[in-house]
Amino acid sequence: MPAALRSRSGGKPVAKPAKPRSKQASRQVVLHKQAKGVRTREAILARAVDIASAQGLEGLTVGSLAEQLGMSKSGLFAHFGSKEELQLATVEAARLVFIDKVTLPAIAAPKGMPRLWALLDRWLVLVEKRVFEGGCFFTAASFEFDGRLGVVRDRIAAIMHEWIACITGSVKKAQEAGHLDPKLDPTRLAFEFHAIAIGAHWAHQLLEDKQAYSRARLMVLEKLRSIATPQSPRLP
Amino acid sequence: MPAALRSRSGGKPVAKPAKPRSKQASRQVVLHKQAKGVRTREAILARAVDIASAQGLEGLTVGSLAEQLGMSKSGLFAHFGSKEELQLATVEAARLVFIDKVTLPAIAAPKGMPRLWALLDRWLVLVEKRVFEGGCFFTAASFEFDGRLGVVRDRIAAIMHEWIACITGSVKKAQEAGHLDPKLDPTRLAFEFHAIAIGAHWAHQLLEDKQAYSRARLMVLEKLRSIATPQSPRLP
Repeated sequence: MPAALRSRSGGKPVAKPAKPRSKQASRQVVLHKQAKGVRTREAILARAVDIASAQGLEGLTVGSLAEQLGMSKSGLFAHFGSKEELQLATVEAARLVFIDKVTLPAIAAPKGMPRLWALLDRWLVLVEKRVFEGGCFFTAASFEFDGRLGVVRDRIAAIMHEWIACITGSVKKAQEAGHLDPKLDPTRLAFEFHAIAIGAHWAHQLLEDKQAYSRARLMVLEKLRSIATPQSPRLP
Repeated sequence: MPAALRSRSGGKPVAKPAKPRSKQASRQVVLHKQAKGVRTREAILARAVDIASAQGLEGLTVGSLAEQLGMSKSGLFAHFGSKEELQLATVEAARLVFIDKVTLPAIAAPKGMPRLWALLDRWLVLVEKRVFEGGCFFTAASFEFDGRLGVVRDRIAAIMHEWIACITGSVKKAQEAGHLDPKLDPTRLAFEFHAIAIGAHWAHQLLEDKQAYSRARLMVLEKLRSIATPQSPRLP
Protein backbone atom coordinates (compact mmCIF):
# COMPACT_ATOMS: atom_id res chain seq x y z
CA MET A 1 0.00 0.00 0.00
CA PRO A 2 1.46 3.41 -0.92
CA ALA A 3 2.56 5.36 2.13
CA ALA A 4 0.40 8.33 1.15
CA LEU A 5 -2.74 6.30 1.85
CA ARG A 6 -1.76 5.57 5.44
CA SER A 7 -2.55 7.89 8.29
CA ARG A 8 0.36 9.79 9.74
CA SER A 9 0.26 7.70 12.86
CA GLY A 10 1.04 4.67 10.61
CA GLY A 11 -2.23 2.96 11.69
CA LYS A 12 -5.21 1.96 9.55
CA PRO A 13 -5.24 3.07 5.92
CA VAL A 14 -7.59 5.93 5.12
CA ALA A 15 -9.76 6.08 1.99
CA LYS A 16 -8.48 8.33 -0.80
CA PRO A 17 -10.86 11.29 -0.83
CA ALA A 18 -13.13 11.14 -3.91
CA LYS A 19 -12.79 14.02 -6.31
CA PRO A 20 -16.05 15.98 -6.34
CA ARG A 21 -17.81 15.20 -9.66
CA SER A 22 -18.98 17.97 -11.91
CA LYS A 23 -22.77 18.08 -12.53
CA GLN A 24 -22.21 16.92 -16.10
CA ALA A 25 -20.07 13.97 -15.03
CA SER A 26 -22.70 12.92 -12.46
CA ARG A 27 -25.39 13.06 -15.13
CA GLN A 28 -23.25 10.90 -17.42
CA VAL A 29 -22.84 8.31 -14.69
CA VAL A 30 -26.61 8.20 -14.16
CA LEU A 31 -27.25 7.89 -17.93
CA HIS A 32 -24.61 5.15 -18.21
CA LYS A 33 -26.22 3.21 -15.37
CA GLN A 34 -29.70 3.63 -16.91
CA ALA A 35 -28.45 2.45 -20.33
CA LYS A 36 -26.80 -0.56 -18.69
CA GLY A 37 -30.07 -1.30 -16.87
CA VAL A 38 -32.03 -1.15 -20.12
CA ARG A 39 -29.54 -3.47 -21.85
CA THR A 40 -29.70 -5.96 -18.98
CA ARG A 41 -33.50 -5.86 -19.02
CA GLU A 42 -33.54 -6.43 -22.79
CA ALA A 43 -31.15 -9.37 -22.47
CA ILE A 44 -33.30 -10.91 -19.73
CA LEU A 45 -36.47 -10.51 -21.79
CA ALA A 46 -34.93 -11.90 -24.99
CA ARG A 47 -34.07 -15.09 -23.08
CA ALA A 48 -37.45 -15.07 -21.30
CA VAL A 49 -39.34 -14.90 -24.63
CA ASP A 50 -37.44 -17.95 -25.92
CA ILE A 51 -37.97 -19.97 -22.75
CA ALA A 52 -41.67 -19.06 -22.59
CA SER A 53 -42.21 -19.94 -26.26
CA ALA A 54 -40.87 -23.44 -25.59
CA GLN A 55 -41.85 -24.17 -21.98
CA GLY A 56 -44.75 -21.78 -21.44
CA LEU A 57 -45.01 -18.56 -19.44
CA GLU A 58 -45.56 -20.67 -16.31
CA GLY A 59 -42.34 -22.53 -17.05
CA LEU A 60 -40.55 -19.21 -16.75
CA THR A 61 -39.22 -19.26 -13.20
CA VAL A 62 -37.04 -16.47 -11.82
CA GLY A 63 -34.62 -19.12 -10.52
CA SER A 64 -34.01 -20.91 -13.83
CA LEU A 65 -33.89 -17.64 -15.77
CA ALA A 66 -31.30 -16.17 -13.35
CA GLU A 67 -29.21 -19.35 -13.65
CA GLN A 68 -29.27 -19.29 -17.46
CA LEU A 69 -28.23 -15.63 -17.52
CA GLY A 70 -25.58 -16.04 -14.82
CA MET A 71 -27.38 -13.53 -12.60
CA SER A 72 -28.50 -13.68 -9.00
CA LYS A 73 -32.22 -14.11 -8.24
CA SER A 74 -32.20 -10.79 -6.36
CA GLY A 75 -30.57 -9.10 -9.38
CA LEU A 76 -33.41 -10.38 -11.53
CA PHE A 77 -36.03 -9.33 -8.98
CA ALA A 78 -34.60 -5.79 -9.16
CA HIS A 79 -35.90 -5.66 -12.76
CA PHE A 80 -39.19 -7.53 -12.23
CA GLY A 81 -40.80 -7.41 -8.81
CA SER A 82 -42.89 -10.56 -9.27
CA LYS A 83 -43.39 -13.54 -11.56
CA GLU A 84 -46.52 -11.86 -12.98
CA GLU A 85 -44.53 -8.69 -13.83
CA LEU A 86 -41.92 -10.85 -15.55
CA GLN A 87 -44.64 -12.67 -17.52
CA LEU A 88 -46.25 -9.38 -18.59
CA ALA A 89 -42.91 -7.88 -19.63
CA THR A 90 -42.14 -11.07 -21.59
CA VAL A 91 -45.47 -10.82 -23.43
CA GLU A 92 -44.71 -7.17 -24.32
CA ALA A 93 -41.23 -8.10 -25.55
CA ALA A 94 -42.69 -10.85 -27.77
CA ARG A 95 -45.24 -8.36 -29.16
CA LEU A 96 -42.41 -6.01 -30.17
CA VAL A 97 -40.60 -8.85 -31.96
CA PHE A 98 -43.84 -9.68 -33.79
CA ILE A 99 -44.37 -6.05 -34.86
CA ASP A 100 -40.73 -5.76 -35.93
CA LYS A 101 -40.69 -8.97 -37.98
CA VAL A 102 -44.25 -9.14 -39.30
CA THR A 103 -46.37 -6.00 -39.11
CA LEU A 104 -43.82 -3.29 -40.01
CA PRO A 105 -42.27 -5.08 -43.02
CA ALA A 106 -45.78 -5.92 -44.30
CA ILE A 107 -46.75 -2.22 -44.17
CA ALA A 108 -43.84 -1.57 -46.54
CA ALA A 109 -45.57 -3.69 -49.22
CA PRO A 110 -47.97 -1.94 -51.68
CA LYS A 111 -51.54 -1.46 -50.39
CA GLY A 112 -54.24 -4.03 -50.97
CA MET A 113 -53.56 -7.65 -51.88
CA PRO A 114 -49.72 -7.44 -51.74
CA ARG A 115 -49.88 -6.08 -48.19
CA LEU A 116 -52.37 -8.73 -47.05
CA TRP A 117 -50.21 -11.47 -48.55
CA ALA A 118 -47.05 -9.98 -46.97
CA LEU A 119 -48.72 -10.00 -43.55
CA LEU A 120 -49.73 -13.66 -43.75
CA ASP A 121 -46.51 -14.80 -45.40
CA ARG A 122 -44.27 -13.02 -42.88
CA TRP A 123 -46.22 -14.52 -40.03
CA LEU A 124 -45.57 -18.03 -41.38
CA VAL A 125 -41.89 -17.15 -41.98
CA LEU A 126 -41.54 -15.90 -38.39
CA VAL A 127 -42.54 -19.27 -37.01
CA GLU A 128 -40.85 -21.34 -39.70
CA LYS A 129 -37.50 -19.63 -39.09
CA ARG A 130 -37.79 -20.14 -35.33
CA VAL A 131 -37.47 -16.47 -34.44
CA PHE A 132 -39.06 -17.64 -31.18
CA GLU A 133 -37.13 -20.73 -30.02
CA GLY A 134 -40.27 -22.76 -29.29
CA GLY A 135 -42.26 -21.81 -32.40
CA CYS A 136 -45.21 -19.41 -32.20
CA PHE A 137 -45.00 -17.51 -28.92
CA PHE A 138 -48.58 -16.24 -29.02
CA THR A 139 -50.24 -19.50 -30.02
CA ALA A 140 -48.48 -21.20 -27.11
CA ALA A 141 -49.35 -18.35 -24.71
CA SER A 142 -52.98 -18.30 -25.90
CA PHE A 143 -53.57 -21.96 -25.18
CA GLU A 144 -51.64 -21.79 -21.90
CA PHE A 145 -53.71 -18.92 -20.48
CA ASP A 146 -57.12 -19.29 -22.13
CA GLY A 147 -58.57 -21.18 -19.15
CA ARG A 148 -57.29 -18.69 -16.56
CA LEU A 149 -58.25 -15.28 -15.24
CA GLY A 150 -55.98 -12.32 -14.60
CA VAL A 151 -53.92 -9.56 -16.13
CA VAL A 152 -51.60 -11.87 -18.11
CA ARG A 153 -54.50 -13.61 -19.86
CA ASP A 154 -56.19 -10.24 -20.48
CA ARG A 155 -53.05 -8.82 -22.08
CA ILE A 156 -52.54 -11.88 -24.31
CA ALA A 157 -56.20 -11.68 -25.39
CA ALA A 158 -55.90 -7.92 -26.12
CA ILE A 159 -52.80 -8.50 -28.30
CA MET A 160 -54.57 -11.31 -30.17
CA HIS A 161 -57.65 -9.09 -30.72
CA GLU A 162 -55.22 -6.50 -32.12
CA TRP A 163 -53.70 -9.10 -34.46
CA ILE A 164 -57.06 -10.38 -35.72
CA ALA A 165 -58.15 -6.75 -36.25
CA CYS A 166 -54.95 -6.22 -38.24
CA ILE A 167 -55.72 -9.17 -40.58
CA THR A 168 -59.41 -8.16 -40.85
CA GLY A 169 -58.39 -4.55 -41.62
CA SER A 170 -55.98 -5.73 -44.33
CA VAL A 171 -58.75 -7.80 -45.93
CA LYS A 172 -61.01 -4.71 -45.95
CA LYS A 173 -58.26 -2.55 -47.48
CA ALA A 174 -57.73 -5.15 -50.20
CA GLN A 175 -61.47 -5.07 -50.89
CA GLU A 176 -61.44 -1.23 -50.99
CA ALA A 177 -58.49 -1.37 -53.39
CA GLY A 178 -60.62 -3.54 -55.68
CA HIS A 179 -58.27 -6.53 -55.27
CA LEU A 180 -60.62 -8.81 -53.35
CA ASP A 181 -64.25 -9.84 -53.88
CA PRO A 182 -66.15 -7.14 -51.89
CA LYS A 183 -69.04 -9.50 -51.01
CA LEU A 184 -66.86 -11.66 -48.73
CA ASP A 185 -67.02 -11.28 -44.96
CA PRO A 186 -63.64 -9.94 -43.73
CA THR A 187 -64.14 -11.38 -40.20
CA ARG A 188 -64.66 -14.85 -41.58
CA LEU A 189 -61.69 -14.62 -43.94
CA ALA A 190 -59.44 -13.43 -41.09
CA PHE A 191 -60.67 -16.37 -38.98
CA GLU A 192 -59.87 -18.76 -41.82
CA PHE A 193 -56.33 -17.46 -42.41
CA HIS A 194 -55.64 -17.49 -38.69
CA ALA A 195 -56.96 -21.04 -38.35
CA ILE A 196 -54.71 -22.29 -41.18
CA ALA A 197 -51.65 -20.84 -39.44
CA ILE A 198 -52.59 -22.21 -36.01
CA GLY A 199 -53.25 -25.60 -37.61
CA ALA A 200 -49.77 -25.47 -39.13
CA HIS A 201 -48.13 -24.61 -35.78
CA TRP A 202 -49.97 -27.52 -34.19
CA ALA A 203 -48.99 -30.05 -36.87
CA HIS A 204 -45.37 -28.85 -36.94
CA GLN A 205 -44.86 -28.70 -33.19
CA LEU A 206 -46.71 -31.79 -32.03
CA LEU A 207 -46.70 -34.15 -35.01
CA GLU A 208 -43.33 -32.91 -36.34
CA ASP A 209 -44.99 -32.54 -39.73
CA LYS A 210 -42.28 -31.01 -41.94
CA GLN A 211 -44.80 -30.10 -44.64
CA ALA A 212 -47.03 -28.11 -42.25
CA TYR A 213 -45.83 -24.59 -43.12
CA SER A 214 -45.44 -25.10 -46.86
CA ARG A 215 -48.93 -26.65 -46.93
CA ALA A 216 -50.36 -23.72 -44.95
CA ARG A 217 -48.63 -21.19 -47.25
CA LEU A 218 -50.06 -22.96 -50.32
CA MET A 219 -53.54 -23.03 -48.78
CA VAL A 220 -53.44 -19.29 -48.00
CA LEU A 221 -52.17 -18.52 -51.52
CA GLU A 222 -54.82 -20.68 -53.21
CA LYS A 223 -57.54 -19.11 -51.05
CA LEU A 224 -56.35 -15.58 -51.96
CA ARG A 225 -56.14 -16.48 -55.67
CA SER A 226 -59.67 -17.94 -55.58
CA ILE A 227 -61.15 -14.67 -54.22
CA ALA A 228 -58.90 -12.15 -56.04
CA THR A 229 -60.47 -9.86 -58.65
CA PRO A 230 -58.93 -9.42 -62.15
CA GLN A 231 -57.63 -6.02 -60.89
CA SER A 232 -55.52 -7.62 -58.17
CA PRO A 233 -51.73 -7.57 -58.61
CA ARG A 234 -50.41 -11.08 -59.25
CA LEU A 235 -49.56 -13.22 -56.23
CA PRO A 236 -46.27 -15.17 -56.15
CA MET B 1 -69.66 -55.99 26.21
CA PRO B 2 -71.37 -59.38 26.15
CA ALA B 3 -69.95 -61.73 28.78
CA ALA B 4 -69.22 -64.37 26.17
CA LEU B 5 -66.51 -62.10 24.70
CA ARG B 6 -64.61 -61.86 27.98
CA SER B 7 -62.07 -64.40 29.06
CA ARG B 8 -63.12 -66.66 31.88
CA SER B 9 -60.78 -64.92 34.26
CA GLY B 10 -62.83 -61.69 33.71
CA GLY B 11 -59.74 -59.89 32.32
CA LYS B 12 -59.22 -58.33 28.87
CA PRO B 13 -61.86 -58.99 26.20
CA VAL B 14 -60.88 -61.49 23.57
CA ALA B 15 -61.63 -61.06 19.87
CA LYS B 16 -64.60 -63.03 18.57
CA PRO B 17 -63.07 -65.74 16.44
CA ALA B 18 -63.81 -64.97 12.76
CA LYS B 19 -65.93 -67.55 11.00
CA PRO B 20 -63.81 -69.17 8.35
CA ARG B 21 -65.03 -67.81 4.98
CA SER B 22 -65.99 -70.13 2.21
CA LYS B 23 -63.85 -69.89 -0.95
CA GLN B 24 -66.79 -68.33 -2.79
CA ALA B 25 -67.35 -65.65 -0.12
CA SER B 26 -63.62 -64.72 -0.15
CA ARG B 27 -63.75 -64.40 -3.92
CA GLN B 28 -66.79 -62.11 -3.63
CA VAL B 29 -64.97 -59.87 -1.13
CA VAL B 30 -62.00 -59.59 -3.51
CA LEU B 31 -64.29 -58.80 -6.47
CA HIS B 32 -66.18 -56.22 -4.41
CA LYS B 33 -62.93 -54.52 -3.43
CA GLN B 34 -61.69 -54.55 -7.03
CA ALA B 35 -64.96 -53.04 -8.30
CA LYS B 36 -64.77 -50.33 -5.65
CA GLY B 37 -61.17 -49.61 -6.67
CA VAL B 38 -62.18 -49.31 -10.32
CA ARG B 39 -65.04 -46.93 -9.45
CA THR B 40 -62.74 -44.76 -7.33
CA ARG B 41 -60.15 -44.67 -10.11
CA GLU B 42 -62.84 -43.70 -12.63
CA ALA B 43 -64.11 -40.90 -10.36
CA ILE B 44 -60.57 -39.59 -9.89
CA LEU B 45 -59.90 -39.61 -13.61
CA ALA B 46 -63.20 -37.94 -14.53
CA ARG B 47 -62.27 -35.02 -12.26
CA ALA B 48 -58.65 -35.08 -13.49
CA VAL B 49 -59.77 -34.79 -17.14
CA ASP B 50 -61.87 -31.71 -16.31
CA ILE B 51 -59.11 -30.03 -14.31
CA ALA B 52 -56.50 -30.77 -16.98
CA SER B 53 -58.75 -29.45 -19.78
CA ALA B 54 -59.02 -26.12 -17.95
CA GLN B 55 -55.67 -25.77 -16.13
CA GLY B 56 -53.41 -28.06 -18.13
CA LEU B 57 -51.94 -31.46 -17.32
CA GLU B 58 -49.19 -29.70 -15.35
CA GLY B 59 -51.87 -27.92 -13.30
CA LEU B 60 -53.04 -31.34 -12.18
CA THR B 61 -51.35 -31.76 -8.79
CA VAL B 62 -51.99 -34.78 -6.59
CA GLY B 63 -52.60 -32.40 -3.66
CA SER B 64 -55.34 -30.29 -5.26
CA LEU B 65 -56.98 -33.33 -6.87
CA ALA B 66 -57.07 -35.17 -3.51
CA GLU B 67 -58.58 -32.09 -1.85
CA GLN B 68 -61.29 -31.72 -4.48
CA LEU B 69 -62.22 -35.39 -4.19
CA GLY B 70 -62.08 -35.43 -0.38
CA MET B 71 -59.35 -38.08 -0.46
CA SER B 72 -55.96 -38.28 1.18
CA LYS B 73 -52.84 -37.77 -0.93
CA SER B 74 -51.67 -41.25 0.00
CA GLY B 75 -55.04 -42.68 -1.05
CA LEU B 76 -54.59 -41.05 -4.44
CA PHE B 77 -51.00 -42.25 -4.73
CA ALA B 78 -52.27 -45.79 -4.19
CA HIS B 79 -53.99 -45.46 -7.58
CA PHE B 80 -51.26 -43.50 -9.42
CA GLY B 81 -47.68 -43.93 -8.28
CA SER B 82 -46.43 -40.66 -9.75
CA LYS B 83 -47.62 -37.42 -11.35
CA GLU B 84 -46.56 -38.78 -14.76
CA GLU B 85 -48.69 -41.91 -14.25
CA LEU B 86 -51.63 -39.70 -13.28
CA GLN B 87 -51.10 -37.55 -16.41
CA LEU B 88 -50.90 -40.62 -18.66
CA ALA B 89 -54.04 -42.15 -17.11
CA THR B 90 -55.84 -38.80 -17.53
CA VAL B 91 -54.90 -38.68 -21.23
CA GLU B 92 -56.24 -42.24 -21.68
CA ALA B 93 -59.48 -41.34 -19.89
CA ALA B 94 -59.95 -38.30 -22.16
CA ARG B 95 -59.32 -40.50 -25.22
CA LEU B 96 -62.11 -42.86 -24.12
CA VAL B 97 -64.52 -39.92 -23.71
CA PHE B 98 -63.58 -38.73 -27.22
CA ILE B 99 -64.16 -42.19 -28.72
CA ASP B 100 -67.46 -42.53 -26.86
CA LYS B 101 -68.81 -39.11 -27.86
CA VAL B 102 -67.30 -38.62 -31.32
CA THR B 103 -65.85 -41.67 -33.07
CA LEU B 104 -68.38 -44.37 -32.14
CA PRO B 105 -71.55 -42.31 -32.86
CA ALA B 106 -70.02 -41.19 -36.19
CA ILE B 107 -69.43 -44.82 -37.21
CA ALA B 108 -73.19 -45.35 -36.78
CA ALA B 109 -73.83 -42.86 -39.64
CA PRO B 110 -74.06 -44.20 -43.23
CA LYS B 111 -70.71 -44.65 -45.01
CA GLY B 112 -69.14 -41.89 -47.08
CA MET B 113 -70.09 -38.23 -46.79
CA PRO B 114 -72.64 -38.65 -43.93
CA ARG B 115 -70.01 -40.39 -41.78
CA LEU B 116 -67.35 -37.77 -42.54
CA TRP B 117 -69.79 -34.98 -41.67
CA ALA B 118 -70.89 -36.79 -38.47
CA LEU B 119 -67.27 -37.09 -37.36
CA LEU B 120 -66.54 -33.36 -37.81
CA ASP B 121 -69.89 -32.19 -36.47
CA ARG B 122 -69.71 -34.36 -33.33
CA TRP B 123 -66.21 -33.09 -32.64
CA LEU B 124 -67.47 -29.50 -32.69
CA VAL B 125 -70.49 -30.48 -30.54
CA LEU B 126 -68.19 -32.15 -27.98
CA VAL B 127 -66.34 -28.91 -27.37
CA GLU B 128 -69.37 -26.63 -27.77
CA LYS B 129 -71.31 -28.56 -25.10
CA ARG B 130 -68.34 -28.46 -22.72
CA VAL B 131 -68.10 -32.23 -22.30
CA PHE B 132 -64.60 -31.36 -21.08
CA GLU B 133 -64.93 -28.52 -18.56
CA GLY B 134 -62.15 -26.42 -20.10
CA GLY B 135 -63.07 -26.92 -23.77
CA CYS B 136 -61.01 -29.17 -26.03
CA PHE B 137 -58.86 -31.45 -23.87
CA PHE B 138 -56.54 -32.53 -26.67
CA THR B 139 -55.97 -29.09 -28.20
CA ALA B 140 -54.98 -27.82 -24.75
CA ALA B 141 -52.79 -30.87 -24.06
CA SER B 142 -51.16 -30.62 -27.52
CA PHE B 143 -50.05 -27.03 -27.04
CA GLU B 144 -49.01 -27.67 -23.44
CA PHE B 145 -46.69 -30.58 -24.29
CA ASP B 146 -45.53 -29.87 -27.84
CA GLY B 147 -42.29 -28.25 -26.64
CA ARG B 148 -41.40 -31.07 -24.23
CA LEU B 149 -39.95 -34.54 -24.40
CA GLY B 150 -41.20 -37.67 -22.65
CA VAL B 151 -43.84 -40.33 -22.51
CA VAL B 152 -46.77 -37.94 -21.92
CA ARG B 153 -45.97 -35.88 -25.02
CA ASP B 154 -45.41 -39.08 -27.03
CA ARG B 155 -48.79 -40.45 -26.01
CA ILE B 156 -50.62 -37.19 -26.83
CA ALA B 157 -48.89 -37.09 -30.23
CA ALA B 158 -49.81 -40.75 -30.91
CA ILE B 159 -53.49 -40.09 -30.10
CA MET B 160 -53.49 -37.01 -32.33
CA HIS B 161 -51.87 -39.00 -35.18
CA GLU B 162 -54.68 -41.54 -34.66
CA TRP B 163 -57.31 -38.75 -34.87
CA ILE B 164 -55.84 -37.18 -38.02
CA ALA B 165 -55.65 -40.67 -39.57
CA CYS B 166 -59.33 -41.12 -38.66
CA ILE B 167 -60.34 -37.90 -40.49
CA THR B 168 -58.06 -38.70 -43.45
CA GLY B 169 -59.50 -42.25 -43.64
CA SER B 170 -63.06 -40.88 -43.62
CA VAL B 171 -62.21 -38.51 -46.48
CA LYS B 172 -60.80 -41.46 -48.48
CA LYS B 173 -63.92 -43.58 -47.77
CA ALA B 174 -66.14 -40.70 -48.93
CA GLN B 175 -64.05 -40.54 -52.13
CA GLU B 176 -64.33 -44.34 -52.60
CA ALA B 177 -68.11 -44.07 -52.08
CA GLY B 178 -68.19 -41.54 -54.94
CA HIS B 179 -69.36 -38.73 -52.64
CA LEU B 180 -66.24 -36.56 -52.79
CA ASP B 181 -64.07 -35.33 -55.66
CA PRO B 182 -61.46 -38.14 -55.99
CA LYS B 183 -58.72 -35.77 -57.19
CA LEU B 184 -58.47 -33.98 -53.84
CA ASP B 185 -55.63 -34.77 -51.43
CA PRO B 186 -57.14 -36.41 -48.29
CA THR B 187 -54.17 -35.35 -46.10
CA ARG B 188 -54.64 -31.71 -47.01
CA LEU B 189 -58.40 -31.84 -46.50
CA ALA B 190 -57.95 -33.43 -43.07
CA PHE B 191 -55.43 -30.70 -42.19
CA GLU B 192 -57.91 -28.04 -43.28
CA PHE B 193 -60.85 -29.44 -41.27
CA HIS B 194 -58.63 -29.86 -38.23
CA ALA B 195 -57.29 -26.31 -38.56
CA ILE B 196 -60.83 -24.85 -38.71
CA ALA B 197 -61.76 -26.64 -35.48
CA ILE B 198 -58.54 -25.61 -33.67
CA GLY B 199 -59.09 -22.04 -34.85
CA ALA B 200 -62.60 -22.17 -33.38
CA HIS B 201 -61.33 -23.47 -30.01
CA TRP B 202 -58.78 -20.68 -29.93
CA ALA B 203 -61.27 -17.92 -30.76
CA HIS B 204 -63.87 -19.26 -28.33
CA GLN B 205 -61.51 -19.86 -25.42
CA LEU B 206 -59.24 -16.83 -25.62
CA LEU B 207 -61.31 -14.17 -27.38
CA GLU B 208 -64.66 -15.41 -25.99
CA ASP B 209 -65.99 -15.32 -29.55
CA LYS B 210 -69.53 -16.72 -29.23
CA GLN B 211 -69.78 -17.21 -33.02
CA ALA B 212 -66.63 -19.32 -33.23
CA TYR B 213 -68.23 -22.77 -33.33
CA SER B 214 -71.19 -21.87 -35.55
CA ARG B 215 -68.76 -20.15 -37.95
CA ALA B 216 -66.50 -23.22 -37.96
CA ARG B 217 -69.46 -25.56 -38.57
CA LEU B 218 -70.62 -23.40 -41.50
CA MET B 219 -67.10 -23.32 -42.96
CA VAL B 220 -66.78 -27.12 -42.76
CA LEU B 221 -70.25 -27.55 -44.32
CA GLU B 222 -69.53 -25.10 -47.16
CA LYS B 223 -66.19 -26.76 -47.84
CA LEU B 224 -67.84 -30.21 -47.97
CA ARG B 225 -70.62 -28.92 -50.26
CA SER B 226 -68.08 -27.32 -52.59
CA ILE B 227 -66.22 -30.63 -53.08
CA ALA B 228 -69.21 -33.04 -53.00
CA THR B 229 -70.13 -34.95 -56.16
CA PRO B 230 -73.74 -35.05 -57.47
CA GLN B 231 -73.89 -38.63 -56.06
CA SER B 232 -73.31 -37.45 -52.49
CA PRO B 233 -76.23 -37.64 -50.03
CA ARG B 234 -77.40 -34.12 -49.14
CA LEU B 235 -75.70 -32.42 -46.24
CA PRO B 236 -77.81 -30.65 -43.58
